[in-house]
Amino acid sequence: MGDTAVADAVTLRDRIAKGEILAADVAEAQIARIEEADKKIGAYCWFDADYVRRQAQMLDKQRSAGRPIGPLHGLPVALKDVIDNARIPTENGTSVDAGRVPTEDADLVKQLRSAGALILGKTVTAELAFMTPGKTRNPHNLNCTPGGSSSGSAAAVAAGMAPLAVGTQTGGSVIRPAAFCGVTGFKPTFDAISRRGVLAQSPSLDTVGVFSTTPREAALLCDTLFAHERAGVPMPPPHLLKTVDAGAPLPPVFAVLQPPAWDRAAPETKDALAELTEALGEQAFEFTLPALFDEAADIRYRINIAEMARCYHRYNGRDGVGDAVQMALKEGNKVLARDYIAALDWPDVLNSALDEVFSRCDAILCPAALGPAPGIETTGDAIFNGLWTLCRTPAVTVPIMDAGGLPLGAQLVGPRGGDARLLRTAQWLYDWIDTAGGSE
Amino acid sequence: MGDTAVADAVTLRDRIAKGEILAADVAEAQIARIEEADKKIGAYCWFDADYVRRQAQMLDKQRSAGRPIGPLHGLPVALKDVIDNARIPTENGTSVDAGRVPTEDADLVKQLRSAGALILGKTVTAELAFMTPGKTRNPHNLNCTPGGSSSGSAAAVAAGMAPLAVGTQTGGSVIRPAAFCGVTGFKPTFDAISRRGVLAQSPSLDTVGVFSTTPREAALLCDTLFAHERAGVPMPPPHLLKTVDAGAPLPPVFAVLQPPAWDRAAPETKDALAELTEALGEQAFEFTLPALFDEAADIRYRINIAEMARCYHRYNGRDGVGDAVQMALKEGNKVLARDYIAALDWPDVLNSALDEVFSRCDAILCPAALGPAPGIETTGDAIFNGLWTLCRTPAVTVPIMDAGGLPLGAQLVGPRGGDARLLRTAQWLYDWIDTAGGSE
Repeated sequence: MGDTAVADAVTLRDRIAKGEILAADVAEAQIARIEEADKKIGAYCWFDADYVRRQAQMLDKQRSAGRPIGPLHGLPVALKDVIDNARIPTENGTSVDAGRVPTEDADLVKQLRSAGALILGKTVTAELAFMTPGKTRNPHNLNCTPGGSSSGSAAAVAAGMAPLAVGTQTGGSVIRPAAFCGVTGFKPTFDAISRRGVLAQSPSLDTVGVFSTTPREAALLCDTLFAHERAGVPMPPPHLLKTVDAGAPLPPVFAVLQPPAWDRAAPETKDALAELTEALGEQAFEFTLPALFDEAADIRYRINIAEMARCYHRYNGRDGVGDAVQMALKEGNKVLARDYIAALDWPDVLNSALDEVFSRCDAILCPAALGPAPGIETTGDAIFNGLWTLCRTPAVTVPIMDAGGLPLGAQLVGPRGGDARLLRTAQWLYDWIDTAGGSE
Repeated sequence: MGDTAVADAVTLRDRIAKGEILAADVAEAQIARIEEADKKIGAYCWFDADYVRRQAQMLDKQRSAGRPIGPLHGLPVALKDVIDNARIPTENGTSVDAGRVPTEDADLVKQLRSAGALILGKTVTAELAFMTPGKTRNPHNLNCTPGGSSSGSAAAVAAGMAPLAVGTQTGGSVIRPAAFCGVTGFKPTFDAISRRGVLAQSPSLDTVGVFSTTPREAALLCDTLFAHERAGVPMPPPHLLKTVDAGAPLPPVFAVLQPPAWDRAAPETKDALAELTEALGEQAFEFTLPALFDEAADIRYRINIAEMARCYHRYNGRDGVGDAVQMALKEGNKVLARDYIAALDWPDVLNSALDEVFSRCDAILCPAALGPAPGIETTGDAIFNGLWTLCRTPAVTVPIMDAGGLPLGAQLVGPRGGDARLLRTAQWLYDWIDTAGGSE
């Protein structure tokens, strides 16, 4: 068995592939950790140790029979409870869907299974991937929120209850919980990962993303998750891990941004960004966005609630659906088509403005959240994330410092399609913070 | 000069290419015809004989210099006044845009110019490609409408004032005027022809289409007009004319449809469809559509006015904008986003139902309009066309008979992407009607 829990996912994958560790050993270590830690943290809403054991046995059998193994062979992955698994409850964090058992795996689950991943279980989501918190607590402080809506996925990775996890972001539901829990969160370019079989809240915004300890491990997972085809046309493999491992040819350059609503950022956040910028020296320059960007949050929200009114029609007015969703549906039901259609023009306009910045840097650097995780009555504010969801640009957060026992995250943003380079830059920042250069 | 006006466009193209006729001769014949006929018919809203002559001179020079010539070299084409031409007034049929002179050609105009086409002028459109008639009269009876909104394009081809013309259809603006004027009208698969530089009324519905005497000539024109690339990805040439000329391998089979709102069809229309079906014998079978299809007209209209409220925002409440557009904008401004978004799901649902029929026939056969052209106070009713615009399926009309001096049209519909086969089937029907088999 040995050190399965502490190994990073890439090393673990390599050791399983070589036969140094059995999938069954990985499974047992993971089960033990979950049974120990999840009572307090509540990251999982569905977990069955025997189900994990069965998968591990089958994977070990496959390997020992000399059959080819997948790129994630034996690697444990946790899935947000808005992602359909065949024959496993997928309840979308609402009592309305209690007992809902899909008959088919989501596309991304099929890809994980083909790659040999070990599905650990389903992680807690805020109600309907929106705002009402689930049962999960922040592993760094049980009185704090893990963030949302991918609460369980972020907390599971932070607490060693999964090396890798999948979540979704429509506003800030990947980046924010990752930052609050002190792990890496990666929201790829819009639609890079298939959403077939994933709860649709706002199809123009919904983006599948991942959680891991390091950007490098996110790259490993996303090499499998990125869609293999689009409308029947095969897509080239993204080679994310390969790009990360090749390293940056030059020290990366960061365009530092104080995003819209900066005045609401906590002092810790402002200090952290200032320190980081100073420490990066010539590798960082500051820039500002046109006033246009101040409206992006409203535009994103308008698209979100209008599409939610359509997609969540069946939850409207139902017993057991919380106030946050009900109010959003009430507002969403009022959005006019002309305003909705006008809002859909914004991503292209905003990206035109961003293109100039991206031409001068490796990534935009900005905070991942207003401040450290607040209390458990909320999942926090997505104000620093929604802009990038609307723009459909890839975004990644890496932990930069500890603010009184709670992590803070830096958020890096790249141009659409620039996922590999962004992860490479994020790994550079992760390593840099981890060693001498880190701003504490 | 000789018989330039009576030659079909493919023959004319071949003769110009061989040097048997000069582009200048074609131009002069066409100018003479327009100057003679258009006083009464009013198909053109912008026409300048010298502009046509200059293009012809340049084309002849190019040819005589031995430079390669395009596939439409010297062929005259008329353009609906919603299609941008650089430095030529493009007024969209509204006084609001009087004197509007675009600085750039629409994509399709660039393609026409590269192919060596002779741009004849701009043809009359109903106000803003909607319902209020322009000045054009039906060449078969000056007291009747040519149909709309591509009124001038249909009338110009019918009156020999252009062998080929381009129009647009958002409801029934290609098929209906073609039927009323007794020419071939072809609305390809949605988005087959680029709409860049074409007035946007309802981007989910707007479709560029063409007018010609025969389907074969529509194929020639569309071989040039079909988009050469989509989002940077080159598209294969559609080989429409080649497919038409290869002929049908077997006598085509027609699925005869009495479409929704059949009870509103004129007796002539009902008789014509019955006669045609009978004459086709074993090549025709009747089928019905599920009740679902009865709602398609409302769904299409909802999408149309919602997107119009967005796209025609600048015309809203403006002096000089007619009641039909104003009322549509007023209604469109009220459409809710959730209803609009729900409506956008319909095309796929309807096409799923159509797939079964398409698997059993070469084309659906139905009427192109309720009856022959009504008076000039209207452009007629698009009820038999809107379904196919919503479904994004290719549709073509060919004249089937003469009802008291006015033409009637048969409408053929194929599956999305099946443009070449549909034109081949339409040419078969055209030839069949023209010879022994014709009903009447």
